[in-house]
Amino acid sequence: MRALVLQEKGRMAIEEIPDLGGPGPGEVKIAMHTVGICASDVHYLTHGRIGPFVVEAPMVLGHEGSGTVVAVGEGVSHLSPGDRVAMEPGVPDLASRAVREGNYNVDPGVRFWATPPVHGCLADEVIHPAAYTFRLPDALSYAEGAMIEPFSVGMFAATRAQISPGDVAAVIGSGTIGIMIALAARAGGASRVYVSDVLPQKLGLLDGLDGIIPVDATQEDLGERVRAETDGWGPQVVFEASGAAPAYRGLWSIPAPGGRIVLVGMPVSDVPFDVSTAAARGLSIETVFRYKNVYGKAIDLAATDAVDLGRFVTETFAFDDATAAFDRFLEGRPTDVKLQIRL
Amino acid sequence: MRALVLQEKGRMAIEEIPDLGGPGPGEVKIAMHTVGICASDVHYLTHGRIGPFVVEAPMVLGHEGSGTVVAVGEGVSHLSPGDRVAMEPGVPDLASRAVREGNYNVDPGVRFWATPPVHGCLADEVIHPAAYTFRLPDALSYAEGAMIEPFSVGMFAATRAQISPGDVAAVIGSGTIGIMIALAARAGGASRVYVSDVLPQKLGLLDGLDGIIPVDATQEDLGERVRAETDGWGPQVVFEASGAAPAYRGLWSIPAPGGRIVLVGMPVSDVPFDVSTAAARGLSIETVFRYKNVYGKAIDLAATDAVDLGRFVTETFAFDDATAAFDRFLEGRPTDVKLQIRL
Amino acid sequence: MRALVLQEKGRMAIEEIPDLGGPGPGEVKIAMHTVGICASDVHYLTHGRIGPFVVEAPMVLGHEGSGTVVAVGEGVSHLSPGDRVAMEPGVPDLASRAVREGNYNVDPGVRFWATPPVHGCLADEVIHPAAYTFRLPDALSYAEGAMIEPFSVGMFAATRAQISPGDVAAVIGSGTIGIMIALAARAGGASRVYVSDVLPQKLGLLDGLDGIIPVDATQEDLGERVRAETDGWGPQVVFEASGAAPAYRGLWSIPAPGGRIVLVGMPVSDVPFDVSTAAARGLSIETVFRYKNVYGKAIDLAATDAVDLGRFVTETFAFDDATAAFDRFLEGRPTDVKLQIRL
Amino acid sequence: MRALVLQEKGRMAIEEIPDLGGPGPGEVKIAMHTVGICASDVHYLTHGRIGPFVVEAPMVLGHEGSGTVVAVGEGVSHLSPGDRVAMEPGVPDLASRAVREGNYNVDPGVRFWATPPVHGCLADEVIHPAAYTFRLPDALSYAEGAMIEPFSVGMFAATRAQISPGDVAAVIGSGTIGIMIALAARAGGASRVYVSDVLPQKLGLLDGLDGIIPVDATQEDLGERVRAETDGWGPQVVFEASGAAPAYRGLWSIPAPGGRIVLVGMPVSDVPFDVSTAAARGLSIETVFRYKNVYGKAIDLAATDAVDLGRFVTETFAFDDATAAFDRFLEGRPTDVKLQIRL
Repeated sequence: MRALVLQEKGRMAIEEIPDLGGPGPGEVKIAMHTVGICASDVHYLTHGRIGPFVVEAPMVLGHEGSGTVVAVGEGVSHLSPGDRVAMEPGVPDLASRAVREGNYNVDPGVRFWATPPVHGCLADEVIHPAAYTFRLPDALSYAEGAMIEPFSVGMFAATRAQISPGDVAAVIGSGTIGIMIALAARAGGASRVYVSDVLPQKLGLLDGLDGIIPVDATQEDLGERVRAETDGWGPQVVFEASGAAPAYRGLWSIPAPGGRIVLVGMPVSDVPFDVSTAAARGLSIETVFRYKNVYGKAIDLAATDAVDLGRFVTETFAFDDATAAFDRFLEGRPTDVKLQIRL
Repeated sequence: MRALVLQEKGRMAIEEIPDLGGPGPGEVKIAMHTVGICASDVHYLTHGRIGPFVVEAPMVLGHEGSGTVVAVGEGVSHLSPGDRVAMEPGVPDLASRAVREGNYNVDPGVRFWATPPVHGCLADEVIHPAAYTFRLPDALSYAEGAMIEPFSVGMFAATRAQISPGDVAAVIGSGTIGIMIALAARAGGASRVYVSDVLPQKLGLLDGLDGIIPVDATQEDLGERVRAETDGWGPQVVFEASGAAPAYRGLWSIPAPGGRIVLVGMPVSDVPFDVSTAAARGLSIETVFRYKNVYGKAIDLAATDAVDLGRFVTETFAFDDATAAFDRFLEGRPTDVKLQIRL
Repeated sequence: MRALVLQEKGRMAIEEIPDLGGPGPGEVKIAMHTVGICASDVHYLTHGRIGPFVVEAPMVLGHEGSGTVVAVGEGVSHLSPGDRVAMEPGVPDLASRAVREGNYNVDPGVRFWATPPVHGCLADEVIHPAAYTFRLPDALSYAEGAMIEPFSVGMFAATRAQISPGDVAAVIGSGTIGIMIALAARAGGASRVYVSDVLPQKLGLLDGLDGIIPVDATQEDLGERVRAETDGWGPQVVFEASGAAPAYRGLWSIPAPGGRIVLVGMPVSDVPFDVSTAAARGLSIETVFRYKNVYGKAIDLAATDAVDLGRFVTETFAFDDATAAFDRFLEGRPTDVKLQIRL
Repeated sequence: MRALVLQEKGRMAIEEIPDLGGPGPGEVKIAMHTVGICASDVHYLTHGRIGPFVVEAPMVLGHEGSGTVVAVGEGVSHLSPGDRVAMEPGVPDLASRAVREGNYNVDPGVRFWATPPVHGCLADEVIHPAAYTFRLPDALSYAEGAMIEPFSVGMFAATRAQISPGDVAAVIGSGTIGIMIALAARAGGASRVYVSDVLPQKLGLLDGLDGIIPVDATQEDLGERVRAETDGWGPQVVFEASGAAPAYRGLWSIPAPGGRIVLVGMPVSDVPFDVSTAAARGLSIETVFRYKNVYGKAIDLAATDAVDLGRFVTETFAFDDATAAFDRFLEGRPTDVKLQIRL
């Protein structure tokens, strides 16, 4: 079968790889249909590593996938051949303490697709644990199914935010993750989500979404804008989704008293933390690492009218054009949200 | 000025009462526009009491109100004459320990409109603390403004439920409060809200609402239905909104493991609690008493496309026909959700 | 090797059973030293079942155990032969959704010692997963190690109570579990724990424990007593540890406004729930089923001066006298807290 | 009556000031007995300001006080003349939104003793709201009563930490506040509290305290030490109490996966935040600003055997020697914890 293999830093090709055989107990075999390209896939291609994860052997790329079940292993009861599915790409070591304590996302033993040395899902078929494979309802296309992965990051950020119904939220950064957070926060209970960015084209992507309010950061201050529209109080929740150090300068004074900051963007080095400003407002700060226990909920919410993931699939490439998809990603067009590959 | 006065049990009339004078410091004076009729108003009329609260002197009825600010007292900065507003009807004793601890709704010193001996708002004008008076956005009509009070009960129930984005919820009872809960839970982050009732007409009120699924309790079991559509897991949150003792029989086995039951309906006497069933599922149970800190959030959420309160105003009566409104309430038509009086 | 086998309802004997062989991967083999007798062991003897769990084949009794590691399986790194250990008796199905969501205690697939058809630990040796086997510090004896199991129930109750440092707590029932809760709540942050019982001898067991205050329920009302000593406010947390239906009559008005009730005793049938009283105080109610993620913490806290578990080991029987130990349990002496068997 | 007045930066004297008259409604008049000196008192003396708070008029110093009620105003029922009391020094604006939401400590309208322009309590008598005045039990001396204020900071830090019974905690910095945190965390449920400092003399202050473990930061790494004694897991909670920027370098990798950092020390400028390390561990970070709703709980816990505040009163000065007390503070002896003035 075919797979998109990163042979080493800078070198990627569609290769024939051996068939996988049948699924083992508790596993399913899936014919892949659609896979989104994530910045991490591109980063492994261009840099050969992300932090401690180094590409030291050829690795299949891709972790944002949807497909069709073609075979189920022993003991699998909630899935059948023919089911359309999306797959949670990280599988923890079940015997770990982190799992026992309910924090499987930070288990150091997690095996995550396309994170060296674990192969990803940009291949004709994959085998995956059934417990991390989720049936797609009719309301969701395969393309939307492949969007569940990035949406899950937004969902977990919104979960960590402990949004109370009707809270006002703000998101710094209108990139793919910022948009996913905005969707999840809004559908997750926020009455209004202000999204700021320095690129007006990115903000244009949000046009017409009820309750999502773009803020051009080159023209106005996010905190001031929200305070002006909340009787001076500010947003209960602020999501940092840019990962840009300068965004941290004014971050600490944006939330309302007793509010919460959720950090989703990952700065490449230390950022400045104004502890006394944060303390004077009584803030809590939550970090977000991947996600846990949100995949099914992400699908459920994406299947409602409240969330339209399909809108954010910018372009779809044939598998044979996978390299073109990566090239397009590297162009960095501000209006590109998600590029996908159709197997 | 005119007011609808409950003179004593069974006797109610529109009376002329003295003008209120100007608002004091921190207060506003409001020309009332619309007031909804609540079961408690009707109950005071028919029974002269609710639990420990006994009508011992003439009392103005009504606590679900909206209107227009006509004067503001000293120190009021966030409101001006002409503002369209909705008013939170309960004002706590600020010096109380419950307030200090953030639980003003259970402060025994709360003064709540139309709860003896406190006058309500079915009058031409009222004076109210500015801190409990909320500006209505253009998106909300006066009729919707008067719906914020019952919606706040739903909002507080949804808040106590600690819904995670995408959770599945269930509501027992499709009366006014059950509907308010369903709207709040859905807009507050639930992906699907199953609402059960024994009267199919009541369920019909929910037709066409995205993500709200009526369940005819005479035909199918709520728990079984939700489990069938959640791979056998069940809803993370169950709201009891009927207040009917029989509903408690099967209640304890409905939620998913680790789930939550939120009790909103108030049974008139003790109900049966199956502790071992609840324990085996690891449930938490939350009670709901009125609401706190949700009025502004209720307005914010009602102003979005996610919630349409106007749909649930069944009929509006002129103030002179107030008695007819109460008579209609007492008919108990299953399709009546909210009856309102236009001042 | 020897084991105490419940052959069928009413018939129990020490038997020779086959050796277990060596531990598998991730497992350890333990030479048992001390095992406490729990009401459930006795109940299986006298009734042959507890709820849905029916003794249909001979079963080794006992689940409150300590011992010495004699062999470790492949991949076990935190334990070595010679380590003194206590064992968490319930092992969940790691692939279950409950585990993934952090609620392994309510996983229906849990295998729990001496719960049919799973054998217990009243035997010369057992094999157990290393992840559920905890090293005892020098400060704890084997007898105390075997007390960690009932203490863990108290620990989990105290955990579910979300005690804030300095909270006042109350416990209904001074049986073994009530005492364990009192110890855990006090060491877990409560400044005072009031414990009520109808048997003065049971309350005498608590004499001299700092911050634990016995209340003779035949002489005074628990709620009134605590309110009298808290400026009328009441305890922030109330633990129901009697499982007796009459205790539920007055339960709902004991906690302070905004307080919490934690249900640990398991009534045999439905108990009366006064929803409106609970709601008017804004209460939350938590259930407790066994425990999760507290075994190690229970050991750590028991090793401090704040908790003396050894005080509550009433008497120790030789293995050969196991039957006498069960007979003594059935006498029901009010001053018996824990009876243990020494292998 | 006499008062210790800071006339302006660098100039302080005991002055005669006018009598206060009687207490108003809801107030009590207190004859001061003991007042502790806080770093903020000294800082106003030496610098004339702390952040935005500038000494622009003579101000009475002191906010850590205990005394005896001499008169009670109208409506005060829980206090009587002769009661020994400690006073919470910050009184919020009850009408504020922060109060309504349960966050009175971050209300910008709080009036806090000895924070310009509000007078402190280093005077023969003060008048204070009864709701912020707490009766001392016999078990606590006046000196300990005056320690309740700094202990409340520790208590609020421990409360924000959401310690589960038996958690392992670590505190960076063994100054007065670090010690108060260690006491509160230990009595608040932690099984062990590791306290690190670079000055061995400060660690010596903790000798012999059960469950409190000094770590000499010049000799060993706090994180490594705790991991070594927790099977490699680390502490569930880390309190930063030094306020020193270098402490932030290694801070983010100390907590266990899923753990929590509580920031109590206030750095004078931005500190470095390693977001990706914190995220990979799934950490939450809580800030601490003064305290709320812990004063009474601090008294209750200090009255038990679990906390001995008296041990940390290093020396007591007569009121006439107040200047000597401030001079001594400025010496900065490492073994000085709390200096107090006896009125």
